[in-house]
Amino acid sequence: MDKQFQILAFAGSLRKDSYNRALVQAALELTPEGVEIEVFDLEGIPPFNQDIEKNPPQKVIEFKDKIRKVDAILIATPEYNYSIPGVLKNAIDWASRPYKDNSWEGKTVAIMSASSGKLGGARAQYHLRQCFVFLNMFPVNRPEVIVPYVAQTIDANGKLTNEDTRKLIRDLIEALVAWTKKLRAEKTL
Amino acid sequence: MDKQFQILAFAGSLRKDSYNRALVQAALELTPEGVEIEVFDLEGIPPFNQDIEKNPPQKVIEFKDKIRKVDAILIATPEYNYSIPGVLKNAIDWASRPYKDNSWEGKTVAIMSASSGKLGGARAQYHLRQCFVFLNMFPVNRPEVIVPYVAQTIDANGKLTNEDTRKLIRDLIEALVAWTKKLRAEKTL
Amino acid sequence: MDKQFQILAFAGSLRKDSYNRALVQAALELTPEGVEIEVFDLEGIPPFNQDIEKNPPQKVIEFKDKIRKVDAILIATPEYNYSIPGVLKNAIDWASRPYKDNSWEGKTVAIMSASSGKLGGARAQYHLRQCFVFLNMFPVNRPEVIVPYVAQTIDANGKLTNEDTRKLIRDLIEALVAWTKKLRAEKTL
Amino acid sequence: MDKQFQILAFAGSLRKDSYNRALVQAALELTPEGVEIEVFDLEGIPPFNQDIEKNPPQKVIEFKDKIRKVDAILIATPEYNYSIPGVLKNAIDWASRPYKDNSWEGKTVAIMSASSGKLGGARAQYHLRQCFVFLNMFPVNRPEVIVPYVAQTIDANGKLTNEDTRKLIRDLIEALVAWTKKLRAEKTL
Repeated sequence: MDKQFQILAFAGSLRKDSYNRALVQAALELTPEGVEIEVFDLEGIPPFNQDIEKNPPQKVIEFKDKIRKVDAILIATPEYNYSIPGVLKNAIDWASRPYKDNSWEGKTVAIMSASSGKLGGARAQYHLRQCFVFLNMFPVNRPEVIVPYVAQTIDANGKLTNEDTRKLIRDLIEALVAWTKKLRAEKTL
Repeated sequence: MDKQFQILAFAGSLRKDSYNRALVQAALELTPEGVEIEVFDLEGIPPFNQDIEKNPPQKVIEFKDKIRKVDAILIATPEYNYSIPGVLKNAIDWASRPYKDNSWEGKTVAIMSASSGKLGGARAQYHLRQCFVFLNMFPVNRPEVIVPYVAQTIDANGKLTNEDTRKLIRDLIEALVAWTKKLRAEKTL
Repeated sequence: MDKQFQILAFAGSLRKDSYNRALVQAALELTPEGVEIEVFDLEGIPPFNQDIEKNPPQKVIEFKDKIRKVDAILIATPEYNYSIPGVLKNAIDWASRPYKDNSWEGKTVAIMSASSGKLGGARAQYHLRQCFVFLNMFPVNRPEVIVPYVAQTIDANGKLTNEDTRKLIRDLIEALVAWTKKLRAEKTL
Repeated sequence: MDKQFQILAFAGSLRKDSYNRALVQAALELTPEGVEIEVFDLEGIPPFNQDIEKNPPQKVIEFKDKIRKVDAILIATPEYNYSIPGVLKNAIDWASRPYKDNSWEGKTVAIMSASSGKLGGARAQYHLRQCFVFLNMFPVNRPEVIVPYVAQTIDANGKLTNEDTRKLIRDLIEALVAWTKKLRAEKTL
């Protein structure tokens, strides 16, 4: 039997009822056959300090270990102050260090974002994409999952119920799987 | 006697021997007459969680209080993964919340950055500038203090000794003071 | 009698029925008392070539002359391929050259953008803002006039009729005037 | 006999002695075996006007035709005013239109940049990368060819002679070929 395709997903917010956690939850519900999505919670990752990067906290060791083991990464990011939340960037920074031990190296990645406002977190996505260049990650181009006015897509129980958005998330996961497989292929021109 | 012009300065790194702390230290040494620079250490600001934004940690209360009291802000930022360090962005996020209590509102600001590599942290600066639009901050345009290969500008005691860089930092502080005074002027066309 | 406050406005598109031309047209209709808006058409500005920057085409001479004479600049930009249209950037490039003769130097500026899609040209605005740092221009922070799904705001005659958007444009012009006057004030702290 | 791997290269400047043309020229000299680089000159591409996008100038038809035929794209970009030159962006815009006839679709691409200043055109590169998301292009992550103080790398005849830079350009071409072949591979996980 084939090994499952494994994705590590996390939301860049610590808020319990975070809209971006709802996006990750929707991704879980929409996982295609043959794919397994594990959710990681950034809660408990302390502020990065380079002085202790060679002796990181247990939570960071665990995070890096999970990143390395999976086939691909799925990030749901809020937008704080027109950029990536500090909490999310801090987790990315930890997992990228020390320099020779960047756990993001070569990973494929897909981004979703949601916001209560009209741009849906888009500005955070483009800053994230710039980080991926240095991290040597390979982001999916399309579809872009950008969810403005996210409160309107979510029901009273915090579940993302909007069908168009759910379809988009499913498409993104499928694109991430296809993109990852393409990059792993061995037969060349 | 005139009140001193007050600047709050901080480095976006927790590393003890941080190059960007050295930039802040140089700024202290180069403070023009009539200006006072207070340094704030981001150590101790925990990861932002919106669930507790109305009841923030003591360190954040203190940070916001200091931001409000000063005339202008001076940020020394490293560049992590081609963007703002999570630690710095996290501090900015805390001080911007809750929404109606953004302590950055209307503040003038100047940026310095240093890195061991050849771009001197420039990429972090432009991401920061995008944040300032939302925060309604007013950044100095010139000079841009971008210090590549920073190790070459610093002596064995961690002191920034390079004269060109020191001159640039002094110019930046003076530009920040002039810019702030201009924005506070009351006589109009 | 007081001199009128003069604004030079232009759209970053050559298309006759351009949505961003409609934004400029709306700005004209909404001009506050004491303010005069002149519209410039970028049609006829050829591709920039540094070899002839000291002997620019007549249209560029005229453009630079008008930029210098006005109090402030108003740009309506489409978004092409997630950035500034080449046509608009090319006009900006011409007017910034030769290096010692940058006609944008010190100018205040406000940006509007419209697109048929959901992000309303926002991505072009942030790229433009980065240009302003080098050009030493001073952009208005708020309000941001970002008009998504612009076709819905425009009537059969190509007139921007949506009242919320018109209000936003009026607010932007007023903010531009106030911002310019503030920067010109002479009395300091 | 194997078909040659074909790259279309162009510089984003019309200046005859452009530093970025020198980069393209160096790429030509450094072409690895089995690879063919054709240089395209953007001179003669008029400002984009959407009204005539379905009936573009001959030079644009030729440009789009060449883009489609090659295996990969190599761009050497100056940085004008902290972003992509209007001339380069305009050529990209033309070749991306009409919407259903985007000739960049699916193309792999590598970027080089040179400037007389200290950041070597880096800011233009990141703006270009944002365009690639919409265009659905796939840029090489590494190496980044960023050439500051470019005049020092070029001899009296305008030839890029600096060995480190030449090595970097050769590495970039090889990375572009390998990246393209990987994306074309058919065998999956």
